[in-house]
Amino acid sequence: MTSQRILIVGGVAGGMSAATRLRRLLEDAEIVVFERGGHVSFANCGLPYYLGGVIDDRSSLLLQTPASLRSRFELDVRVRHEVVAIDRDARTVRVRDLEAGTESDERYDALILSPGANPVRPEIPGADRMLTLRDIDDVDTAMAALTRAPRTALVLGGGFIGLEMTENLLHRGIAVTLVERNPQVLTPLDPEMAEPVAARLRAAGVDLRLGAEVVALGADTATLADGDTIAADLVLAAIGVRPETTLAAQAGLALGPRGGIRVDDQLRTSDPAIYAIGDAVEKVDALSGDQRLVPLAGLANRHGRLVADVIAGTPVIVRDALGTAVVGVLGLTIAVTGWNEKQLRAAGREIRVIHTHPASHTGYYPGAQPMALKLLVDARTDEILGAQAVGGDGVDKRIDVIATAMTGRLTASDLADLELGYAPQYSSAKDPVNMLGYVAHNARAGLTPSIQWHELAAELAAGATLIDVRTPGEYRGGAIPGSLNIPLDDLRERIGEIPAGRLIVHCKVGQRGHTAVRLLTQLGREAVNLDGGYLTWSAGSAAATRLVAA
Amino acid sequence: MTSQRILIVGGVAGGMSAATRLRRLLEDAEIVVFERGGHVSFANCGLPYYLGGVIDDRSSLLLQTPASLRSRFELDVRVRHEVVAIDRDARTVRVRDLEAGTESDERYDALILSPGANPVRPEIPGADRMLTLRDIDDVDTAMAALTRAPRTALVLGGGFIGLEMTENLLHRGIAVTLVERNPQVLTPLDPEMAEPVAARLRAAGVDLRLGAEVVALGADTATLADGDTIAADLVLAAIGVRPETTLAAQAGLALGPRGGIRVDDQLRTSDPAIYAIGDAVEKVDALSGDQRLVPLAGLANRHGRLVADVIAGTPVIVRDALGTAVVGVLGLTIAVTGWNEKQLRAAGREIRVIHTHPASHTGYYPGAQPMALKLLVDARTDEILGAQAVGGDGVDKRIDVIATAMTGRLTASDLADLELGYAPQYSSAKDPVNMLGYVAHNARAGLTPSIQWHELAAELAAGATLIDVRTPGEYRGGAIPGSLNIPLDDLRERIGEIPAGRLIVHCKVGQRGHTAVRLLTQLGREAVNLDGGYLTWSAGSAAATRLVAA
Repeated sequence: MTSQRILIVGGVAGGMSAATRLRRLLEDAEIVVFERGGHVSFANCGLPYYLGGVIDDRSSLLLQTPASLRSRFELDVRVRHEVVAIDRDARTVRVRDLEAGTESDERYDALILSPGANPVRPEIPGADRMLTLRDIDDVDTAMAALTRAPRTALVLGGGFIGLEMTENLLHRGIAVTLVERNPQVLTPLDPEMAEPVAARLRAAGVDLRLGAEVVALGADTATLADGDTIAADLVLAAIGVRPETTLAAQAGLALGPRGGIRVDDQLRTSDPAIYAIGDAVEKVDALSGDQRLVPLAGLANRHGRLVADVIAGTPVIVRDALGTAVVGVLGLTIAVTGWNEKQLRAAGREIRVIHTHPASHTGYYPGAQPMALKLLVDARTDEILGAQAVGGDGVDKRIDVIATAMTGRLTASDLADLELGYAPQYSSAKDPVNMLGYVAHNARAGLTPSIQWHELAAELAAGATLIDVRTPGEYRGGAIPGSLNIPLDDLRERIGEIPAGRLIVHCKVGQRGHTAVRLLTQLGREAVNLDGGYLTWSAGSAAATRLVAA
Repeated sequence: MTSQRILIVGGVAGGMSAATRLRRLLEDAEIVVFERGGHVSFANCGLPYYLGGVIDDRSSLLLQTPASLRSRFELDVRVRHEVVAIDRDARTVRVRDLEAGTESDERYDALILSPGANPVRPEIPGADRMLTLRDIDDVDTAMAALTRAPRTALVLGGGFIGLEMTENLLHRGIAVTLVERNPQVLTPLDPEMAEPVAARLRAAGVDLRLGAEVVALGADTATLADGDTIAADLVLAAIGVRPETTLAAQAGLALGPRGGIRVDDQLRTSDPAIYAIGDAVEKVDALSGDQRLVPLAGLANRHGRLVADVIAGTPVIVRDALGTAVVGVLGLTIAVTGWNEKQLRAAGREIRVIHTHPASHTGYYPGAQPMALKLLVDARTDEILGAQAVGGDGVDKRIDVIATAMTGRLTASDLADLELGYAPQYSSAKDPVNMLGYVAHNARAGLTPSIQWHELAAELAAGATLIDVRTPGEYRGGAIPGSLNIPLDDLRERIGEIPAGRLIVHCKVGQRGHTAVRLLTQLGREAVNLDGGYLTWSAGSAAATRLVAA
């Protein structure tokens, strides 16, 4: 038997993980990697930070080179080589050498497609001066633009990458206008969770335009749909990506309902000799079982490794995708896993929603930072459906722990029992994740029913009484209109002041509200807690105001 | 029916969690808390940091007071009241008012024992001047001692608390001698994992005496078993705790094999009207199912809440204990969960051991900090049995994730599939926990067998050849005696230089070694990887040298 010939289209995260794993499994195989761009195995997640000067050494972005991959892994890596067609019957690909301008056919026994995704570019006048940040060539272009000393920049898209671009442009001393089509930044989050991020951006001087659209780009300006003209020496866009499926579609490979390449549970396309991985491929959503696009580096790397195992003859289990993600911006950390409330309500799921506002570690140890946490729970099964966190230290830790709990099929109430490391610098004896479990357990047991910030107005309209159990000082500092202030510690003795009928109780974050609901319920009153307290209501109300305005 | 009368012995973590939860469930119950000390609900984990001046406000340690607990929870909290006897037939306790000197009997329907644990004190001459840090009175005494401007201090015990004491005394500018009976600090860790902690202590100027014992204390000195005399203006001890079982034992309640109070799966003692929680109580070990003492605040708080549910009529599930713990010392974070290699080998378990040395986040983003990780795996089932980590940022996160995976019954190989948040500041596309899963999977699949640092000498004695696949520069900077240096990238062409027979391969951390083992195995050679590479071997060897010397 002659050795296998394996061709790989795309030499970044997924493609390169597959190539190196294949070599570790198949020393005899001939492995050729074709990369359309000028570089392989580069740190694409680092590009915004190189732009911002946080990473100052360009070479640190280049994790491997064709030469290093040749000497260590005997890989034949050809950059500036584009695979332009697949002949599935002949098992060959047509390859164009972009520098020489020549074409040739290359035979394969197995073909792996890892072409990634392309940035979405709006079709507006002047769009050609819009820069993106997907590869080294992109970042070189953007760095060249910085040498012309731009004073103003427009960033299109308030998603993860758009926020990283914004932060890094600010870091260069450039004034940034951030335009986002939706009424909130970071749409994987719910609006009340995204609100602190918007506030932080504004506080840093960003001209944040939510629910806005760019309709044309001039030489150093941009025109918005509302007619505003904004200064924009530089324009960077990150309004999403589309799976690169041209090659696959031309070859007649099946695409999925979300427009990505369809693969089976062994990462095979509709042609069993052709595999596909990475951002171009549809994944299976862990919660719905539906097809989904999840353009995340972690999954691309992981699937690169798995596809190598499959080709080497070992069946694998490809886990369904949760879509855990994290981003840092202007000192805030924002992390998310699973589904958000918007998606769950749109899907008609019966859910319990929990907001908390814990500190990163014990309050008595210096340096504790506040955090907002949100947990989404199946009301029937107690299954964890998603989580979001925004704050300082320890946000990434809590979401990683919850994502792990979801993978381990722990319920929301089970979070109470997790044994997480505690010392005063790192956590509290009841870690924020444990506290989510406590709240979830109380809700599940029916001990403390709650309503959401967006349900309050209807409750009040229907005649419920809102009781603010914070201290008078807190109340004076800002309160929900129409609320009656009776501090928790006075509640037993002032019970007579409370009107008949249904009661909504709230405090600052929800914890005193919980105690008040328990007290009132045991005294025979119908009482529910305003989940997340004044803080969540305030953030939600600010976001809703913007939603209406937009 | 008259309301229940519930008495609680001990008003700190477990007792106070039980009291406040009980009030939320039973508004009518009479709840009385007896605390022998002068304070309830104080931050015992913060005491070393108050001593060190890191926490400067004493009142921040006092989370609740009898007055605040009265007004919010209608609790009758009596400090300086010691319960001295239980009359189980009469369902009364004998309570001594330590200030008034009087005694009285108090009736109960349910009694909760949460007396905690007492510091072990060695019986040596001069032991009366030894200070401990278990409660506010202790820390007040220690603070008073600081006013006498001690220049030297002796800390007994190199465990979690002993290291926190050491750090905080250094913070006060006091020269510290740390004496530990065992040949390593932090015995929950294995010796090669504790070695960097010892090195850090020495680098900070601590006179670290391992395998040493104090036999006598003078007025400002201490005498060690080896005859050395050391200066010790101040002596602080943290050599462990013993469950406070005096009251339980006198009342004839069953104790367990480890000397703690025995409880059933509903936290009931052998008397169904008496419950017990916290450090005084034996827990069930999650891995062995055996009884175990786990004096950790998280479990005490959690069980306080559970016992309240039981008394209020809701059956609970008390999870077996993993014993996750974390400590910070001199800029290092050290965390652990489950069993260590010493325990597993002593128990005759067939295990796989994995050491890695990842960075806290991507190397191309500034500020990445090194970390040593260790995973212990059941060789037959792939079950995760324990983990240890030492390093900077992100150590606590990784151990919390692994502890959560253990609770969710994920296997070691499953760690590869966890979807953990990735952005360059927080992690790598393959998170260190994912990497542990990769290594575990490779070991399980038989792709890359490995040996441990402590198995190398026997392998070499039996005739195996050790090949160091690092670069010549790395080799010159320090190598394992007897090793042959052939860099990984030269291995294919220099294969002829390698002697016949079994090969042990190593690099710096194990990753290049893995690639080399795969290459050599596919070329027909018998090769195994030295797990954790040169770094683990160096740390282990340094620890072993000390072990022999001690």
